[in-house]
Amino acid sequence: MIIVLKPEVSKEEIQKFSESIMAKYDVKVNAWYGTHATVLGLLGDTHEVDIESIAAQKIVESVKRVQEPYKKANRKFHPDDTVIEIGGHKIGGGELQIIAGPCSVESYEQITEIAKRVKQAGANFLRGGAFKPRTSPYSFQGLRAEGLELLLEAKNLTGMPIVTEIMSTDHIDLFENVDIIQVGARNMQNFELLKELGKLDKPILLKRGLANTIEETLMSAEYIMSSGNEKVILCERGIRTFETFTRNTMDISAVPIFKRLSHLPVIVDPSHAAGIPWLIEPLSLAAVAAGADALIIEVHNDPTKALSDGPQSITPDQFDNIARKVFAAKQSLKNIQ
Amino acid sequence: MIIVLKPEVSKEEIQKFSESIMAKYDVKVNAWYGTHATVLGLLGDTHEVDIESIAAQKIVESVKRVQEPYKKANRKFHPDDTVIEIGGHKIGGGELQIIAGPCSVESYEQITEIAKRVKQAGANFLRGGAFKPRTSPYSFQGLRAEGLELLLEAKNLTGMPIVTEIMSTDHIDLFENVDIIQVGARNMQNFELLKELGKLDKPILLKRGLANTIEETLMSAEYIMSSGNEKVILCERGIRTFETFTRNTMDISAVPIFKRLSHLPVIVDPSHAAGIPWLIEPLSLAAVAAGADALIIEVHNDPTKALSDGPQSITPDQFDNIARKVFAAKQSLKNIQ
Amino acid sequence: MIIVLKPEVSKEEIQKFSESIMAKYDVKVNAWYGTHATVLGLLGDTHEVDIESIAAQKIVESVKRVQEPYKKANRKFHPDDTVIEIGGHKIGGGELQIIAGPCSVESYEQITEIAKRVKQAGANFLRGGAFKPRTSPYSFQGLRAEGLELLLEAKNLTGMPIVTEIMSTDHIDLFENVDIIQVGARNMQNFELLKELGKLDKPILLKRGLANTIEETLMSAEYIMSSGNEKVILCERGIRTFETFTRNTMDISAVPIFKRLSHLPVIVDPSHAAGIPWLIEPLSLAAVAAGADALIIEVHNDPTKALSDGPQSITPDQFDNIARKVFAAKQSLKNIQ
Amino acid sequence: MIIVLKPEVSKEEIQKFSESIMAKYDVKVNAWYGTHATVLGLLGDTHEVDIESIAAQKIVESVKRVQEPYKKANRKFHPDDTVIEIGGHKIGGGELQIIAGPCSVESYEQITEIAKRVKQAGANFLRGGAFKPRTSPYSFQGLRAEGLELLLEAKNLTGMPIVTEIMSTDHIDLFENVDIIQVGARNMQNFELLKELGKLDKPILLKRGLANTIEETLMSAEYIMSSGNEKVILCERGIRTFETFTRNTMDISAVPIFKRLSHLPVIVDPSHAAGIPWLIEPLSLAAVAAGADALIIEVHNDPTKALSDGPQSITPDQFDNIARKVFAAKQSLKNIQ
Repeated sequence: MIIVLKPEVSKEEIQKFSESIMAKYDVKVNAWYGTHATVLGLLGDTHEVDIESIAAQKIVESVKRVQEPYKKANRKFHPDDTVIEIGGHKIGGGELQIIAGPCSVESYEQITEIAKRVKQAGANFLRGGAFKPRTSPYSFQGLRAEGLELLLEAKNLTGMPIVTEIMSTDHIDLFENVDIIQVGARNMQNFELLKELGKLDKPILLKRGLANTIEETLMSAEYIMSSGNEKVILCERGIRTFETFTRNTMDISAVPIFKRLSHLPVIVDPSHAAGIPWLIEPLSLAAVAAGADALIIEVHNDPTKALSDGPQSITPDQFDNIARKVFAAKQSLKNIQ
Repeated sequence: MIIVLKPEVSKEEIQKFSESIMAKYDVKVNAWYGTHATVLGLLGDTHEVDIESIAAQKIVESVKRVQEPYKKANRKFHPDDTVIEIGGHKIGGGELQIIAGPCSVESYEQITEIAKRVKQAGANFLRGGAFKPRTSPYSFQGLRAEGLELLLEAKNLTGMPIVTEIMSTDHIDLFENVDIIQVGARNMQNFELLKELGKLDKPILLKRGLANTIEETLMSAEYIMSSGNEKVILCERGIRTFETFTRNTMDISAVPIFKRLSHLPVIVDPSHAAGIPWLIEPLSLAAVAAGADALIIEVHNDPTKALSDGPQSITPDQFDNIARKVFAAKQSLKNIQ
Repeated sequence: MIIVLKPEVSKEEIQKFSESIMAKYDVKVNAWYGTHATVLGLLGDTHEVDIESIAAQKIVESVKRVQEPYKKANRKFHPDDTVIEIGGHKIGGGELQIIAGPCSVESYEQITEIAKRVKQAGANFLRGGAFKPRTSPYSFQGLRAEGLELLLEAKNLTGMPIVTEIMSTDHIDLFENVDIIQVGARNMQNFELLKELGKLDKPILLKRGLANTIEETLMSAEYIMSSGNEKVILCERGIRTFETFTRNTMDISAVPIFKRLSHLPVIVDPSHAAGIPWLIEPLSLAAVAAGADALIIEVHNDPTKALSDGPQSITPDQFDNIARKVFAAKQSLKNIQ
Repeated sequence: MIIVLKPEVSKEEIQKFSESIMAKYDVKVNAWYGTHATVLGLLGDTHEVDIESIAAQKIVESVKRVQEPYKKANRKFHPDDTVIEIGGHKIGGGELQIIAGPCSVESYEQITEIAKRVKQAGANFLRGGAFKPRTSPYSFQGLRAEGLELLLEAKNLTGMPIVTEIMSTDHIDLFENVDIIQVGARNMQNFELLKELGKLDKPILLKRGLANTIEETLMSAEYIMSSGNEKVILCERGIRTFETFTRNTMDISAVPIFKRLSHLPVIVDPSHAAGIPWLIEPLSLAAVAAGADALIIEVHNDPTKALSDGPQSITPDQFDNIARKVFAAKQSLKNIQ
C-alpha cells in the first residue's frame, strides 16, 4: 500500500502516523521523503488494512493499494485451480459443465420432465428457483418450501445434483439437501447471509451483482471463505449499463479476469445476462471460448407458460442443439491450446 | 398496458389470448386490428399483470406499460403528501429536517457528544451505524447489538429519535426501540427483509440501490407498503456510473421525480452520494433547492479517527455552518414559491 | 409506431392530429378508442417520422416505435450479408479476417517490420494510426500526413490493404489511397464527418462510441449509407461502465445483435475494449465464437517503446500464437454448425 | 507521479529507466527501495508525462498521478475565477446569467419573438441551433447557414449576444459574428475541432460529453486553451447511466467539482440533462444552489410545433416563472454565504 501525504506535513507527524499504523496492523512502514511530497510504503500483509480509515487522516493526500484486498480467494496464495466435485461431476479444472433447468419450479411434472430432457442433452446439474426475487410484490414469488421439495424429488428421480437460490438466513435449514446454494445478484452484498453461508460445508454459487465490480465480487467470495467455507463458485451474469437492447450487458472479460485473479471456478449465466433466447447460443459459445468452467442456462418445456422470466428461456429442443455445440466447441478449444 | 402482437397472428389466436388474460386478471382487453399488426389494450387495474409472462407469449412482439406498476406508493391513488411524524418532528409536508450523526457508533462518549452537537445545530434526528455493511470481511463490522444500546442511550439523553440500518431479518427484535429503520442501498432488493419490515408499525428509510432505477426503488417501497406498513421514506444516495471522481453520482433529478410519482417523503444523503467532505455543502443546498424533505449527513467529532467511512464525514463545526445555510436556504425558497 | 394519447383528448383533436401526421409523412393512421385512453397506430414507412416531434404534442402521452428507425442498415430490407472485398480478401460472409498493426505509425522500420510479421501470421490487413485522438493535448498526436505516407509505403511493400483513422473532414483528400477509413469511437456521432464519408466509394470502419447504444451505432451507419456509401463495417470496441479493472467493457452481445439487426459485417477490437494485453487472446476467441467477421488487434514490435497506447499492445510473437488459435477456432466452429 | 515497479526489477534497470525519464521530461526521479517493491517518484511538472507510455514499460507494475494532467485549466496555477464578459454581461465571478432560446432556429418570427420574450424575463444571452446534431439522418438537420443568419438578425434586433453550436471545422468562417461558439457533447473529444477553436479569440462553451469524466472535460478545455484561446466555459448537461426515466442523469456534483479544480466558469443545461419540461425548474434551482454561473435553457413559443427536441422545451410563460425564481434564489444564496 502506497500512501501519498500532503505537501506540508512535518517529519514528526509522519513518524507518529507511521507508528500508529505499525501498532495496529502487522506491517512495516517505509517513508520516502520527496521535495514536494512524502510517500509511505506499507510492507507485509496489508489485506486487513482499512483503506478508508487511512484515507481519512488529515495528513493523507491519497492511498493506493498495490496488493489485492482479498486473500483466500486470491490466486497468488493458492496457485492451483479449485475444483469442486459434486456427485462425481467436477466444476473447475478443465471440464465444462452445464447447469440447466427452469427459472421457477412450477410442478412435479414440469421439473421432472425438464430434468430428464436436460440430462439427456448432457447437463449434469439441475437448476430451478423455489424462492424467487421479483421486482414487484405482485409477481409470482416462487413455490418456496414446496418448490424445494419438488426439486429434491427431481434430484431423487434423476440423480442430478440441484442448484437453487437462497434469499434469507431464515431459510438455511430448508436448504440442507440442496447441493449448490445460489446467492443471487441482488444479495451479493447481503453480508449477513454470506457470513452464515460461510459456516456451511456446501458449495455456494455466488452471482456477481448488477452494479458490482470484479473486485467486489471477489470480496464477497472472501466473506464466505473467511467464515470457513472455501467452496465458492463465481458467476458472471451481466451488469447494468446504458445499453437497453439487452436486459444486462454480459461482461465477457470477467471470465478470464476472475480466472487470473482467483483460483475459484467461474461460470456464466447467458440467460439472465441477455434476457433474449436467441442470444443464448452465441453467448454460451463465447463464454466457453473465454474459459468458463460451466454454463447455467434456463430451459422451460413451455416458455410461453412460464410463471417467471419466460422471455429468456429456451425449449428443451433448443437446449439439445446448444449443448451439443458448446460441448463440441469445448473439445476443439482443448485441442487448440 | 399496450400489447403489440406479431404480424402473422390469426384472429382466433388473438381471441383465445385475450380471453386468457381476462380470466387471469381483472382487466378488459380491446383489440385494434391494423394492416401490419394487431394491438391489444388492457383496461383496468393492470398493476398485478405480470409483464414478463405476457412478453413471453409466442404471439407477442412487445409490451408497453401505460400505468405505473406500483399502486400504494403512487401519487395518482394518494394525491396528498405522506407526512411522517416522529417525536413531534415531521418528515414530509414542507418542513426541512436534518438527520445527522456518525457513520458508525463507536463509544458512549462519541455518540452522545456528536448527538448534542448536531442537536444544537438544528438536527432533529440522530443517525449512527451499529450493523455496518462493509465490502471487506476484514473491515470493522460495527458494534452491532452493543452499538444499538449506545444509540438508545444517546436517544434517552438527548430526546432525539434515532435512525439506524438493519441488515437481516434475524435482527428485527433488536430494533424494537429504533425510531426509523434504515434499509441500506445494498439491501434495497432484499425482498424477504422488505416483507418483514412491512409487518412493523415503524417508519422505514429506504435507500435507493447503487444500480437501481427510480421505478425499482418505488417497487421496493411497494413491497413494504403492500405488506401493511405505509410509512416509507425514500432516500437518494447516489448511483453507480463511469465517473470516478466521486464515489457515486448523486442523481439530483430523482428528488423531484420521486415527489411527482409518489406521495412518500424524499430525503437525500450527500455524504454517501459523493464520499467527499467538501461536496456536502453544495450538494445539501442543491438537494433542498430540488425539493428534498430532509438531509441525512455524516458528522464525526474526529473524522480522522472514524472506524468506517471517515473520509466523507465532516466535523461538528463544519456541520454547524452547513445546517445554518440549508435552513436559511429552505426559508428563502419557501418565500420564493 | 404506436402513439398513446392522454385520457382527456377529444375526438376532434384526434382527427386533426391524425390528419396532420398523414399530411407530413407517407403513413396511414388508425385510431383505437379505449375507455381510458386512445391509441393511434401509424402504418407504412415510419423511419422518417420524427419521434421527438410526435412526443412533444400536448395530446400525446407516449410514443413507441415498432419498426427500427434505420432502413439501409436493416437486415429486414436486405436479408443477405454484405460482403466487402478488398485486395481479394473478404470481410463478411463467413470468413475470418485479422487486421493488425501498431496503435501509431512511428517510423518506416517500425511499420514495415510489423507489417511483414503480422502478414506471416495470417493477417490480411494492416492497421496503424497516423492521426491520433489523444485525451491530452500534450500527448503524441501521431505523425499525421507523414504517418499516412509511411503506411502507404508499407502497403506497397507488402501488398496489404491499410486501415487508418480519420479525424476531420479537412483530411479526406489525404486518405485517397487508404483502403478502409476508420471512424473512431469519439467521432461516431460526428455527423458532418459521416455525411462526407458517405460520398466516398470506400469502405468505412465505424467504431461504436463509448457511450452509444447498438441502435445509435446503426443510425450512424445509416448516415453514411443514406449519403450513398453502403460499404460500412461495424466495430464493437467496448463501452463505458462502472467497472474499472478493464479500460472499457467489451459488449460481446453486440456481435450477434448487430448480425441479426443488420446485414453489415461486424468486427471486434479486443485491444481497445480491454486495454490489457493478456485479455486479447480470450476476448479474441470469444469474439470469434460469438460470430465476429474480423478482429482488429494492436501489435507492436516493442510495446514498451510505443508512443501511444503501449500498455494494450502485444508483440509479434504473442500475435503469432493468438492468430494461430483464432483461425483454428474459427475452423472448428464452422464444422460444428 | 508515483510509479510502482515490479518486484523482481534490478537496480541497474531502475537506474536506466529513471535516466530515460529525466532525459525525456523536465522532472527529477527519486527512488524508494522497499523490501517487496520499488517506488519511483517524479518531481516537477509532470503534466506532459505520457502516463500510458510509462505504464507500458515491462518493469512497471502501476502508475498513479498525484498532480492533475491539465495546467491551463487548473485552478492551482490560476487561483482567481476566470470571468468572461460579453456585451457587458459577465459569465463567472458571482453573477448568474441565463442563456435561453429555442433548440432549433426555425424562422425569423420564431427566433425574434422568443428572443424578445426571454430578454424581458432576464436572459442576457440568446441560444438557438442552426447546425443540429441529430441521431437520425432522416431528422431535421437545422437551417444551417440560414439559421445563423436569422440568429444574427435576432441579435441585431435585441442586442443579445448569441450562442450556437458548431459541428465542423469547415464552418468556422460562418461563425465569425457568433458571440459564444458551443461545442456539443458529441464533439467534446473532436480534437481537431478543439484545436481550431483554440486559434480563435472568442468564448467557447464546451459541453461535457455523455460518457466523459470531469477530468476528460478539463482535458478538452486544455486542448482549446493550449492552442491559445483561454475563454472556455464548461457546461454540465447530463451523463449516460442506466436510469431511463430521464434522458440523461444530470451530475450536479460536477458543478462544485469543476469550480474547485478549475478557474473556468461553469454552466448547467437542465433542458438536455433531463429531457422533461417539468424538471427544468427544480434542476435549475439545484444548479444555482450548487454554484453554477449560468443556466442554458430551451424555450420555444410553441413546443408542440418544434422541429427538434420539442419535448424538453418550455413556453415563454413557464420561462418567466423559472427565471424569476432562479434569480431570487441566487440573491438569497448570496445573502446566506
